[in-house]
Amino acid sequence: MEKKNVLIVYAHQEPKSFNGALRDVAVSALEEDGHDVYVSDLYAMKFDPVASRNIFKDLKDPNYFNFQNELSHAADTGQLADDLDREMKKILQADLIILQFPMYWLGLPAILKGWIDKCFAERVCFDTTNMKWYDHGPFVNKKLVLSFTTGGSASYFSNTGVFGDMDVLLWPIHNSLRVTGLQVLAPQIFYAPGEIASDDRKRMLDGWRERLRDIWKEDPLPFVHIDNFDP
Amino acid sequence: MEKKNVLIVYAHQEPKSFNGALRDVAVSALEEDGHDVYVSDLYAMKFDPVASRNIFKDLKDPNYFNFQNELSHAADTGQLADDLDREMKKILQADLIILQFPMYWLGLPAILKGWIDKCFAERVCFDTTNMKWYDHGPFVNKKLVLSFTTGGSASYFSNTGVFGDMDVLLWPIHNSLRVTGLQVLAPQIFYAPGEIASDDRKRMLDGWRERLRDIWKEDPLPFVHIDNFDP
Ligand SMILES: Cc1cc2nc3c(=O)[nH]c(=O)nc-3n(C[C@H](O)[C@H](O)[C@H](O)COP(=O)(O)OP(=O)(O)OC[C@H]3O[C@@H](n4cnc5c(N)ncnc54)[C@H](O)[C@@H]3O)c2cc1C
Ligand SMILES: Cc1cc2nc3c(=O)[nH]c(=O)nc-3n(C[C@H](O)[C@H](O)[C@H](O)COP(=O)(O)OP(=O)(O)OC[C@H]3O[C@@H](n4cnc5c(N)ncnc54)[C@H](O)[C@@H]3O)c2cc1C
Ligand SMILES: [Zn+2]
Ligand SMILES: [Zn+2]
Repeated sequence: MEKKNVLIVYAHQEPKSFNGALRDVAVSALEEDGHDVYVSDLYAMKFDPVASRNIFKDLKDPNYFNFQNELSHAADTGQLADDLDREMKKILQADLIILQFPMYWLGLPAILKGWIDKCFAERVCFDTTNMKWYDHGPFVNKKLVLSFTTGGSASYFSNTGVFGDMDVLLWPIHNSLRVTGLQVLAPQIFYAPGEIASDDRKRMLDGWRERLRDIWKEDPLPFVHIDNFDP
Repeated sequence: MEKKNVLIVYAHQEPKSFNGALRDVAVSALEEDGHDVYVSDLYAMKFDPVASRNIFKDLKDPNYFNFQNELSHAADTGQLADDLDREMKKILQADLIILQFPMYWLGLPAILKGWIDKCFAERVCFDTTNMKWYDHGPFVNKKLVLSFTTGGSASYFSNTGVFGDMDVLLWPIHNSLRVTGLQVLAPQIFYAPGEIASDDRKRMLDGWRERLRDIWKEDPLPFVHIDNFDP
């Protein structure tokens, strides 16, 4: 099989956690298949998710701070802070991005949300002024999968469950990341690993390992093509 | 009118921004009506949104870090880090919480997401083991409103727009905050303030000021009562 680049963005504080085990399984499965795997271990890296003005060496407009403009400007002029520069290079190289995280408040932990806020810079990862986004975005050849754990069991995330349908909860994440053109694969969801038997957890880990073997052949989730929406 | 406590959680880097103006309008409207207003200016406070293990003075289980458990433990034993202790006190006092932010990636900026991740501690703000959540949660007498700006115009957030219906995008935020019992008021949305005429922006600011005068009389958004969902 063709050698691919994979970026795993991992957002858990505890290496012994189930998320830690899921990361390890992914790294070993993908490396056994000969792929190059990069892990951004956000807590261990002390990644700073805050979109603060202090991350820029020089400001395009010091009198009126606009994060999006400053981020594009820094990317354009090669003046990105070192950590963001490194992360963006990993993103640009990746054929597949795996976001590995525990669900927090029906969404991403802040450290991972801020990784997106700061690393997916306009003009590098999408360009709305030139309509290079969604199906015309720069990342149409990249794949992304959300791989995450929950505290609640699957029934909480159903139509008759209190958190509501999981697809609806994931829509803002999926649809915003698609701005870059990314192909979104079906999410890999591990419901309530803390509430189940050890054997079932082992089966979950094996299932993830198996899926990763053939993930390259998967069709992405279907989305309506950008040209069909109101301008 | 009865005097109320209002907490405005404000997440913008630039005081001169439209979000800054919206915060100022809210503070002055509410104070003119005699209410007590507290502002958490997250960037100015250098609020750290990361759910890291370093924020705890002593750990309940140093060998297996679990953020939710450590947060509840610290709250129970009065060992919360000072900044979190202050924020939680403001939350507990508030009759109305206003989250004031620019939309980032169809959701909350990381600094605000992390404020939720870290300040809404289990056992203080909800308690799943004793089923004190949603309509039986401790915050049933508090109100919350999302007040935010977008880059895209309203048509982007419609059924025929590329971001999709706004209510669907807000659902994960609203439905997760409701875990505490909070009454969610209709969101206050300022579409594309950067793309419109100065007069229209003035009208937006006036509209927000007017709404705040009578916000106490508003009915919250309707949600299905917790007892009707699958256990
Ligand atoms: C701020 C916050 C907000 C939250 N919001 C939500 C929410 O909105 N909805 C929701 O459903 N949940 C929520 N949660 C709960 C959270 O999603 C879960 O606690 C988390 O997903 C569990 O994953 P973990 O990796 O931390 O599990 P862990 O607790 O680390 O692990 C679960 C089990 O797996 C075992 N394990 C570890 N490694 C292995 C291995 N190699 N093989 C077999 N077993 C192993 C562990 O020993 C443990 O028994 C929230 C939590 C926090 C802190
Ligand atoms: C990381 C990131 C992700 C983003 N993701 C999205 C997304 O998913 N969807 C989306 O739609 N947008 C997105 N945006 C855009 C963002 O939501 C908007 O840029 C933001 O909401 C605009 O609000 P602001 O306060 O920054 O506006 P500003 O640019 O500060 O202000 C807008 C205008 O208001 C004027 N103004 C300021 N004060 C006053 C006043 N007192 N009276 C009258 N006029 C005034 C200003 O001069 C300016 O002309 C994103 C931005 C970033 C940085
Ligand atoms: Zn096209
Ligand atoms: Zn009831």
